[in-house]
Amino acid sequence: MDRVFIVGVGLTKIGRFFDKSARTLFSEALSMAIEDAGGLKPKALVVGNMTSSVLMEQDSLGALLADYSGLRGIPAFKVEAACGSGGAAFYAGYSLARSGMVDVVAVGGVEKLTENLTSSVTKALAQAADMEYEVFYGASFTGLNALIARAYMNRYGYTREDMAYWPLRMHEYASKNPYAQLPRRTTIEKILNSPLIADPLHLYDCSPIGDGAAALILVRGEENARRIARESGRDVIVEVKGVSLRTDSVDLGSRNDLLALESTIKASREAYRMAGVKPGDIDYLEVHDAFHITGYLALEDMGFTGKGEAVKLWREGRFAKGDKPEVNLSGGLKARGHPVGATGVYQIVEATLQLRGEFPGEKASDPEIAATQNIGGVATYTTITVLRRLR
Amino acid sequence: MDRVFIVGVGLTKIGRFFDKSARTLFSEALSMAIEDAGGLKPKALVVGNMTSSVLMEQDSLGALLADYSGLRGIPAFKVEAACGSGGAAFYAGYSLARSGMVDVVAVGGVEKLTENLTSSVTKALAQAADMEYEVFYGASFTGLNALIARAYMNRYGYTREDMAYWPLRMHEYASKNPYAQLPRRTTIEKILNSPLIADPLHLYDCSPIGDGAAALILVRGEENARRIARESGRDVIVEVKGVSLRTDSVDLGSRNDLLALESTIKASREAYRMAGVKPGDIDYLEVHDAFHITGYLALEDMGFTGKGEAVKLWREGRFAKGDKPEVNLSGGLKARGHPVGATGVYQIVEATLQLRGEFPGEKASDPEIAATQNIGGVATYTTITVLRRLR
Repeated sequence: MDRVFIVGVGLTKIGRFFDKSARTLFSEALSMAIEDAGGLKPKALVVGNMTSSVLMEQDSLGALLADYSGLRGIPAFKVEAACGSGGAAFYAGYSLARSGMVDVVAVGGVEKLTENLTSSVTKALAQAADMEYEVFYGASFTGLNALIARAYMNRYGYTREDMAYWPLRMHEYASKNPYAQLPRRTTIEKILNSPLIADPLHLYDCSPIGDGAAALILVRGEENARRIARESGRDVIVEVKGVSLRTDSVDLGSRNDLLALESTIKASREAYRMAGVKPGDIDYLEVHDAFHITGYLALEDMGFTGKGEAVKLWREGRFAKGDKPEVNLSGGLKARGHPVGATGVYQIVEATLQLRGEFPGEKASDPEIAATQNIGGVATYTTITVLRRLR
Repeated sequence: MDRVFIVGVGLTKIGRFFDKSARTLFSEALSMAIEDAGGLKPKALVVGNMTSSVLMEQDSLGALLADYSGLRGIPAFKVEAACGSGGAAFYAGYSLARSGMVDVVAVGGVEKLTENLTSSVTKALAQAADMEYEVFYGASFTGLNALIARAYMNRYGYTREDMAYWPLRMHEYASKNPYAQLPRRTTIEKILNSPLIADPLHLYDCSPIGDGAAALILVRGEENARRIARESGRDVIVEVKGVSLRTDSVDLGSRNDLLALESTIKASREAYRMAGVKPGDIDYLEVHDAFHITGYLALEDMGFTGKGEAVKLWREGRFAKGDKPEVNLSGGLKARGHPVGATGVYQIVEATLQLRGEFPGEKASDPEIAATQNIGGVATYTTITVLRRLR
């Protein structure tokens, strides 16, 4: 009876919405998830968000969003784990459902980055790093990721052009995704010639700043999930087979190896064990490519390739539509967008839609098992989920 | 097997520590809790905190504190529910333990308010209120509580002197509490003549600004709890019998009655039901007296008195040492102190120590059942816990 299922999903288009507040975006996504679950009302809400305290100057976000979504009074709280807030919120919400404390749990994520100027956003996002050990000395969050990208290129002998095939493919997929922030194709030339942000990262190697919200509904028990699916005229259900959250140091200087995402290595192995799967069993995968480098490292540290091989294999066409696993058909953080605390929830929503065969963009090839990887900071946090479709 | 027990507790003195960071304070409290649990290492950490993003400009707090406490790598995240962050973190941590996902869970709270000037703290705390509907128009958090205090005094005909017996008694208890921020007696005259903050609230009607951290360790299963207690030479164990989190609107303008804390009413009834107790069964109680008014309303809305009666009964000596329930022998938020996101955890730690007969200040009269009430905002959040001592 402790099996947990995703019975409703919702999400908004990602963009820079100067006319939509976090409340508006979130209630749009949550209403969609409730409707998708046949009108089932959540009895608790866990919200993933990183920057509301700083950019919106608003705390009490969990209760505020519950109230604005017509659910005043239910248990609600906000989870913060930097860019991994959405995944961590899912971890917390899953445990609420699994424990039997609440029988219908909503997990949502929202981020509103256009509330302020870009300079404020850069500073707010740097709070994912260690303020005393890193940011104080001038590091930005992009700067820290640039350090890793440079170290990777040096160790394995890759060029900027080798690396550029990640954003190229993400833009291709996003061009078919109706809620992507950057739904347009690009070229290797455009990527290489885009403005320098923090060497070796240029603009097109980085995910954009955007607003968005995603939400999903969890219930416990296969019979409940079957009943809701039937009522919605759907013949498949999606089970959460594995969920794991692991952490690492916040500051990069305390790590043994800049190029091993320890939290991803540990969380993925734990989630696979919980789900009873191996990497080779996974048909569909959404990974956290806030920068091309974190996408490549995800593939390596989740066990899909050896160290240093992801860039080569990717350039050769691996992990594309038709391969196993198919990766980031949404367009990824790179081109679908990265509304920070919502991103981890977007990934799970997208994986669920792919398992149901209902994804509105580039469709996966009838996947049965899907996984998602959401990181916070430079993999200070990793949440891995493994989902399975049952007929 | 889903019964959950508190097997270790720790807390720091509360004060304005210009020489101690949040990391230092938190690891002090968590180390104490681990030692108290016979050295048992937590396998997950949930941290309650409100203001780190704004006053410390630091996110990623969960992983940062896990790492600094020697627990790098474990699942960790921060929970924000304004001043109720500690209680909400307990709710999330309890569900992790109860779900069976993690068998040793640490729940901690920390707040570092002296990182900045008082004016910044006032602004940061106002973020508990609705930024668009309340703070934008000039409301401070104390101002909103003053509004409620005035409405209460008007409706029930109480004077400032009637109300002043709350802080009087809290200072009396705090004078015996070695980790209280304000461990000194006061007088009705001093309370009445203290500086005006927001009419009718004067300085001594309000809790102070302070830094502090508290932590506790949860395990599942009575046998595990018994074994740890035996190894620590203790013949009692403390079970979490009830936990409930409920919410209300953030803005006061949307409520039907300013003087009914709906979240406290609902959460307490739910926690009592879960624990199988009535208010009359509760021997010991810690309530959230951020201002005297919220302490009185807690007693009414948790069902210990009728509406409008708490001030009268309190002045007559009810709820004092020797009565049932005995209330806030710690000195409460008023005089023990209120390190915002840590407060809910302090309360549970104190109740646990009282149940064990180990509280270092004013001791309760051999209580068997204890409860705590932690609110966030003006009871936008309430977490209620019910604890029971087993021999």
